[in-house]
Amino acid sequence: MSKLENDRLLRALLRQPVDVTPVWMMRQAGRYLPEYRETRKKAGSFMKLCTNPELACEVTLQPLERFPLDAAILFSDILTVPDAMGLGLYFAEGEGPRFKNPLRDEKQIQALAVPDPETELRYVMDAVRTIRRELDGRVPLIGFSGSPWTLATYMVEGASSKDFSIIKAMMYERPELLDQLLDTVAESVTLYLNAQIKAGVQTVMIFDTWGGALTPSDYCRFSLKPMERIIHSLIRENDGRKVPVILFTKNGGQWLEAMTDTGADALGLDWTTDLADARRRVGNQVALQGNLDPSVLYASPQHIREQVAKVLASFGKGDGHVFNLGHGIHPGIPPDHAAAMIEAVQELSPPYHRV
Amino acid sequence: MSKLENDRLLRALLRQPVDVTPVWMMRQAGRYLPEYRETRKKAGSFMKLCTNPELACEVTLQPLERFPLDAAILFSDILTVPDAMGLGLYFAEGEGPRFKNPLRDEKQIQALAVPDPETELRYVMDAVRTIRRELDGRVPLIGFSGSPWTLATYMVEGASSKDFSIIKAMMYERPELLDQLLDTVAESVTLYLNAQIKAGVQTVMIFDTWGGALTPSDYCRFSLKPMERIIHSLIRENDGRKVPVILFTKNGGQWLEAMTDTGADALGLDWTTDLADARRRVGNQVALQGNLDPSVLYASPQHIREQVAKVLASFGKGDGHVFNLGHGIHPGIPPDHAAAMIEAVQELSPPYHRV
Repeated sequence: MSKLENDRLLRALLRQPVDVTPVWMMRQAGRYLPEYRETRKKAGSFMKLCTNPELACEVTLQPLERFPLDAAILFSDILTVPDAMGLGLYFAEGEGPRFKNPLRDEKQIQALAVPDPETELRYVMDAVRTIRRELDGRVPLIGFSGSPWTLATYMVEGASSKDFSIIKAMMYERPELLDQLLDTVAESVTLYLNAQIKAGVQTVMIFDTWGGALTPSDYCRFSLKPMERIIHSLIRENDGRKVPVILFTKNGGQWLEAMTDTGADALGLDWTTDLADARRRVGNQVALQGNLDPSVLYASPQHIREQVAKVLASFGKGDGHVFNLGHGIHPGIPPDHAAAMIEAVQELSPPYHRV
Repeated sequence: MSKLENDRLLRALLRQPVDVTPVWMMRQAGRYLPEYRETRKKAGSFMKLCTNPELACEVTLQPLERFPLDAAILFSDILTVPDAMGLGLYFAEGEGPRFKNPLRDEKQIQALAVPDPETELRYVMDAVRTIRRELDGRVPLIGFSGSPWTLATYMVEGASSKDFSIIKAMMYERPELLDQLLDTVAESVTLYLNAQIKAGVQTVMIFDTWGGALTPSDYCRFSLKPMERIIHSLIRENDGRKVPVILFTKNGGQWLEAMTDTGADALGLDWTTDLADARRRVGNQVALQGNLDPSVLYASPQHIREQVAKVLASFGKGDGHVFNLGHGIHPGIPPDHAAAMIEAVQELSPPYHRV
């Protein structure tokens, strides 16, 4: 493997000194880029794009051709694991993900098998290897998975849900059955992330999109604990460097203290939490990633720059900040607005660093 | 006016002693009740139901016929005020509210007039007077309005929104224009709530459904400040009693301290905040209302009872708790599950009170 030329992201995630705050964007390889839409059209469908390592590599690298980003993130979907478990992932146009075979009874849950990532999810590992080769050490590659709770919501509901009625009925009625489902999913995610790390990803992020829909005690039991078990079972070294783990619970701003105790190296934050407050609360235990409101990118470059300045100032001086949006970039954002954000981070952040 | 027979709600909102924790449900007059669906069918449409004082009274009282609730809440919609401003509210079946004339330019915003509640919103005041007469002092009547920020999101977006792209672009690009819109809406809401109080409501609640979509500083400026101005301009006495004000920002659990400083008597909480933590944070300044996850009501009566017990225990001993769901009751809930919740509150709460 080539030597890593730009290691700002890995350093910041471990709270080591950097010259400039590293920046990347959730969903940076996505629909807001015309070249992405082109490749997706060529692929024929979103799933065909995910499962074709050459095309997945192509879209992973597209934002790096345009912008001086400090990281690449594997192009994939959070629902590849349940798909590999036989649930039949598909995307209805304009509707979001759906499963052909959602889990609706105890037998289905007990029959679930943990997929072998190098066979059933081989296309993901091949994409990782291809991307690492093509990246050639320019920036680190981020791997990822959905959290067990988030995956379970889709697996049980069968689609995106507004109020999670089916899985919450299960949670309140049969909590031990939900524990069992989450155990199987957590084991699958552990193997999946470890396979990504063996294939070459240099840091991993766990996306807990729906943990914020729970009460504090249910969050601890059904979302945080399974993530904690995963973190404790991950391979933590690659190419002789530590593999940092980023934990992101959307709408999880009330639970940062508990998240800090999981062993994660960094917490992702959405924009509803002030970075200065968050930093006070987590102390020197973890780095923080975030948290520009993605809707800021609808404004003009001048106003984007002002809001970037506010985010940098709220974190303040010192190490341990990775600049990002607080959620994925919206499909309607003009690419030059993303460019304005990245440029602002790189121009305005050096005074916050000692090096 | 008849003497109020059951004043538990008003007492609890002012942190005065009660024998039993008062309980009501957001959207207690709603689609989960077959008798509501019947009346709505009779009315022809949701808007016709809202604008007909006799029918609005009928559905307001329906849940009280079934359940021993401690309050009635005016049946209306949060969007009646912008409708009275000429935006043309309508409901497309299964789609949520929409406006025929959303605000899309500066001229429209500057042309907005503050409606006179006793003329343009007379049907609401007539409903209040009718309901008070029919309630005949059994329980207090709650009036309400949407928050200025929440109303503004619908007025600018024209419908429910996932990411508030249009109003947030305005917020970041033209903050002073948004301030101006919020000023007009706040003035309208103030007159509207004061007219409700004069017509007979005994407590008012401000529903800030979308404040939780903002950053902490934007929340303070664009959602909290306009609500604070309203609270300071409200008539605070009716029938010789104080009219308590309840402030509810959905997903606002991170900002309780700031909400406490507005002069509100009580804060509504969704289920993502622990009541014991919230109580520690707000001290003796405000009462707390909430916060059972509405999805608990999908579970069986036995499990509902367990979860009610947890909510009561999390608030603990003492005054200043109003039991409620953390959001409106879902349309698919069986009415006997709501009954199980109310019964559990009334059976399990007396040990938490001194009287």
